[in-house]
Amino acid sequence: MSRTNHQYRLAGRPVGLPTPTDWEYVEEPVAEPREGQLLIEVIYLSLDPAMRGWMNEGKSYIRPVEIGEVMRAAGVGRVIASRNPQFAVGDYVSGVLNVQEYCLSDGRGLTKVDPALAPLPVYLGVLGIPGMTAYFGLLDIGRPAPGQTVVVSGAAGAVGSVVGQIAKIKGCRVIGVAGGERKCRLVVEQLGFDACIDYKSEDVRKALHEVAPDGVDVYFDNVGGDVLDAVLTRLARGARIVICGAISQYNATGQVKGPANYMSLLVHRASMTGMVVFDYANRYPEATAELAEWLSAGKLRSLEDVADGGVQAFPDTLLRLFRGDNTGKLVLKVTNA
Amino acid sequence: MSRTNHQYRLAGRPVGLPTPTDWEYVEEPVAEPREGQLLIEVIYLSLDPAMRGWMNEGKSYIRPVEIGEVMRAAGVGRVIASRNPQFAVGDYVSGVLNVQEYCLSDGRGLTKVDPALAPLPVYLGVLGIPGMTAYFGLLDIGRPAPGQTVVVSGAAGAVGSVVGQIAKIKGCRVIGVAGGERKCRLVVEQLGFDACIDYKSEDVRKALHEVAPDGVDVYFDNVGGDVLDAVLTRLARGARIVICGAISQYNATGQVKGPANYMSLLVHRASMTGMVVFDYANRYPEATAELAEWLSAGKLRSLEDVADGGVQAFPDTLLRLFRGDNTGKLVLKVTNA
Repeated sequence: MSRTNHQYRLAGRPVGLPTPTDWEYVEEPVAEPREGQLLIEVIYLSLDPAMRGWMNEGKSYIRPVEIGEVMRAAGVGRVIASRNPQFAVGDYVSGVLNVQEYCLSDGRGLTKVDPALAPLPVYLGVLGIPGMTAYFGLLDIGRPAPGQTVVVSGAAGAVGSVVGQIAKIKGCRVIGVAGGERKCRLVVEQLGFDACIDYKSEDVRKALHEVAPDGVDVYFDNVGGDVLDAVLTRLARGARIVICGAISQYNATGQVKGPANYMSLLVHRASMTGMVVFDYANRYPEATAELAEWLSAGKLRSLEDVADGGVQAFPDTLLRLFRGDNTGKLVLKVTNA
Repeated sequence: MSRTNHQYRLAGRPVGLPTPTDWEYVEEPVAEPREGQLLIEVIYLSLDPAMRGWMNEGKSYIRPVEIGEVMRAAGVGRVIASRNPQFAVGDYVSGVLNVQEYCLSDGRGLTKVDPALAPLPVYLGVLGIPGMTAYFGLLDIGRPAPGQTVVVSGAAGAVGSVVGQIAKIKGCRVIGVAGGERKCRLVVEQLGFDACIDYKSEDVRKALHEVAPDGVDVYFDNVGGDVLDAVLTRLARGARIVICGAISQYNATGQVKGPANYMSLLVHRASMTGMVVFDYANRYPEATAELAEWLSAGKLRSLEDVADGGVQAFPDTLLRLFRGDNTGKLVLKVTNA
């Protein structure tokens, strides 16, 4: 049986937002698994702000995607052929499957998932890398105490929506920052945040003064830029800032905007710490267990934003992240489950 | 016996560098101590970069000096009259004596010092607030391990010169950053630093690549601005940045330059933490004991830069800090010891 694979390979290094010429759409026959390999049909692909960074040249926390290489992406899929004793046909797996319809794998880095326990996109969201990022970033680095004030930017996004809900579970007062009234209403009404500031229509600094009069104990930052600078002016003493991302700056063509108010760290004896979720890989099971328990107990909601169009829609769908028009975990449906 | 006091009071809030119109030179009679008070003749005044911040309005880690108030300054002096049973005439004390020749005090916040154990200016340097800042900032926040690379800016200054020497005592590789060849030679030849980068004539980023090829584990920052941004590009994994000061930015009339490379904190899982020495007040005795031991064992050298001219010379002497033309602790000699 011969199958055809479609892929997006990186064709250029973008300056600013990725454009169509940064991608090459490739069609090629699917090879049969050799001894030790398995073949996965990709069902959902994860779209992440971090992808923009992977397209850049140069040293980062993970090697860049090379020109001509299939674009890196997490995904979930189903095993359709296997010569690897660890995986059987019909197994569902998550892992780095890349932007393509079929993934030939040696099994390393794959995790079996159970579609009966949670819908497959949840394994790319709350039970995937965004959930792990939220869990360890908030609890290990943010270290919120009950009653403290936690602010999270990108509050309606894959990571931020989970950060805020975990903080609520831990007894904190939680304030989101998101773009637009719809997202703000969502995180308050559906996710139980105490308040949400619309950075597009409100002065974040002033708004924080009202909703966090005692200052911000933990700030989980997904966006950088002006929002980070505004929160810096409202820190409580001993505040912890978790640097998880800076989506406002990823497509900057000039110099990144550094936080001009960083000396507030001194005034408030505060810290700003960067985190990379992969460092916690050996602790994913504990996070997964607790997140799954909260999900099944109804204490935690998973927000997914499922885009259609298959692999071919990848470049356009990715841009939705940078326009900020997704709510929750953005996934691309590649084939039917 | 009637004495005359000369003081500098704050007359205006500077924009940029302080100018003569920001100060009022006042002459007034010295009052006699009432019950519980003592009168101190000021011998040396401490000149500190932080003074610039105290002249600004607005919330900081310490209240601003008000317009019309005597300028805040640490100093050492001799008790010349006392109606406070804790202090006798002839005692030497250090504390906040302010920019004046005589200080009437209720004794709170004063520490007795012994001029036989160390020259008086040392009590404003290694055994004073700069020494405490270096000790707790480096050891508590920087937490260097033996063999690690420690970088300190303002390396020839009151705090930086002590930071580097403590790091050497702790078995670290120590690299200073200072302005000018003379200062660089001083910290290497006289203080035992392994290397010193002259930010005025060298590309700090390139120089670090050579002298710290394995990256920077601890960066103790006294200057902010471009040096901070350069060091951010050379962090080792898990690096700790201690934010102690930002002298390059204190006289900025526009917006402060935030660290554009702050996302390096994420790439390197690093942290940036602000410190205020006053938080360690109850632990000063342990630091003083250890620093004094190192001094007497010849492991630690005190660098002082003693300016003459009395109180009247205060405004001009202060500007030397911002021109960077002091080496070690800058003190103003007010009267003879």
